[in-house]
Amino acid sequence: MNITLKQAEAAILAAKAKAIEINTLMNIAVVDSGTNLVAFAHMDDAWLGSIDISQRKARTARYFNMNSGEIGKLSQPGGPLYNIEHSNGGLISFPGGVLIKNSDGVILGAIGVSGDSVENDHIVAQAGADAIK
Amino acid sequence: MNITLKQAEAAILAAKAKAIEINTLMNIAVVDSGTNLVAFAHMDDAWLGSIDISQRKARTARYFNMNSGEIGKLSQPGGPLYNIEHSNGGLISFPGGVLIKNSDGVILGAIGVSGDSVENDHIVAQAGADAIK
Amino acid sequence: MNITLKQAEAAILAAKAKAIEINTLMNIAVVDSGTNLVAFAHMDDAWLGSIDISQRKARTARYFNMNSGEIGKLSQPGGPLYNIEHSNGGLISFPGGVLIKNSDGVILGAIGVSGDSVENDHIVAQAGADAIK
Amino acid sequence: MNITLKQAEAAILAAKAKAIEINTLMNIAVVDSGTNLVAFAHMDDAWLGSIDISQRKARTARYFNMNSGEIGKLSQPGGPLYNIEHSNGGLISFPGGVLIKNSDGVILGAIGVSGDSVENDHIVAQAGADAIK
Repeated sequence: MNITLKQAEAAILAAKAKAIEINTLMNIAVVDSGTNLVAFAHMDDAWLGSIDISQRKARTARYFNMNSGEIGKLSQPGGPLYNIEHSNGGLISFPGGVLIKNSDGVILGAIGVSGDSVENDHIVAQAGADAIK
Repeated sequence: MNITLKQAEAAILAAKAKAIEINTLMNIAVVDSGTNLVAFAHMDDAWLGSIDISQRKARTARYFNMNSGEIGKLSQPGGPLYNIEHSNGGLISFPGGVLIKNSDGVILGAIGVSGDSVENDHIVAQAGADAIK
Repeated sequence: MNITLKQAEAAILAAKAKAIEINTLMNIAVVDSGTNLVAFAHMDDAWLGSIDISQRKARTARYFNMNSGEIGKLSQPGGPLYNIEHSNGGLISFPGGVLIKNSDGVILGAIGVSGDSVENDHIVAQAGADAIK
Repeated sequence: MNITLKQAEAAILAAKAKAIEINTLMNIAVVDSGTNLVAFAHMDDAWLGSIDISQRKARTARYFNMNSGEIGKLSQPGGPLYNIEHSNGGLISFPGGVLIKNSDGVILGAIGVSGDSVENDHIVAQAGADAIK
């Protein structure tokens, strides 16, 4: 199964609303179950470098079917997945990438958010993902 | 000056409406005056290879401040810009990339559309750009 | 819908049989509907440069939902898609990439074959795709 | 000397059997003594990000003629090969890449496995390599 554009736009709308609520500026990307980009939004004056990072976070979450930050816990020096970021053309392994599932738990794609602290990035991404459940 | 997310979303909305009107499926990308991605939409079942192409068309238009197809006229064998497509990480020089200007003619960014014949790609891109004027 | 490993292996088996029948050596790649690699086989002493080409042909076919060689007809100098090969990290637009569909015509993925003349590449790819219908 | 496709397919078959035995889903890649891809299999629903990683593990093992995880011990901060992962287009230096040798100890190629914990990745890769000895 795959996310639709209508669902991806709903996720971005919810993520933007959360970003406004917590008073921040974000880049928000949604990829499908094959990691292809479906929808994207760059809020005015959000970090330009996060345009790329938000997309990588979304792909990273779908690549391994877990939140992007979970990868980062394992990829530290001495950790089992040290330097996994060199794969797949460059991963981003800190928080802000979250899987999107339907109400049956089937993976439809993933959302990646970047533009602020990783805590806030994750909060906004989760709000986007929750809009689809 | 720079395109806002609100304007970029309006351009995508108009482009989607035109795509539906002419019965086709498109990928639609909007970049700002610095060639950074502002908004993107992949219509369900549109070509996956056009996700990348739509973004390159938008950047190509803004890189040289002309429609992407104008570059292609100059980049043919024997032409003055032969194989310019090798620059900037890969240009797309056929139609479907159109500048977005405000009512004073100031460039705000560009829109790139891909998913069908280049004639239809251009029609949909122009509809998106016209929504901002 | 997406191709299974069992189906991909059946496609490769049929493609190898056809390659042996016409007395040639091939590289054979199968991608899923999201363009991700599912299975691959390099016949002993087949061209090394075709390991990469076979994968690009398969992706190119799925990117635009047509045989890879159809893209090449449109991407010639003066053609509407001139130099499209610069997109998506590098396309291969000559024959040898063929869509894989189920009996209902739903796209499951694509097969790419490289190692000989493009005519033979296409024959072997088609034999692989036909094994799934 | 070089691994044959028949041997590579036998290694993948043994690796798949081990993956099923330990109840996991893997991506399995076999490269020849020149680090070129010979055969690949993506088990249904295995991690998509591991398609790339499995191939990098196999190449990493053959690049330095040791298990991929041995490189990771040397590439940590302060270690003699710190950040060697930046070479060769991106190495993967954690376990799951294992050399394939014949009964005389001659290197024929390598196998890379990714899809689960690095311990399980290594177990499955070793099972594949052992099928050739």
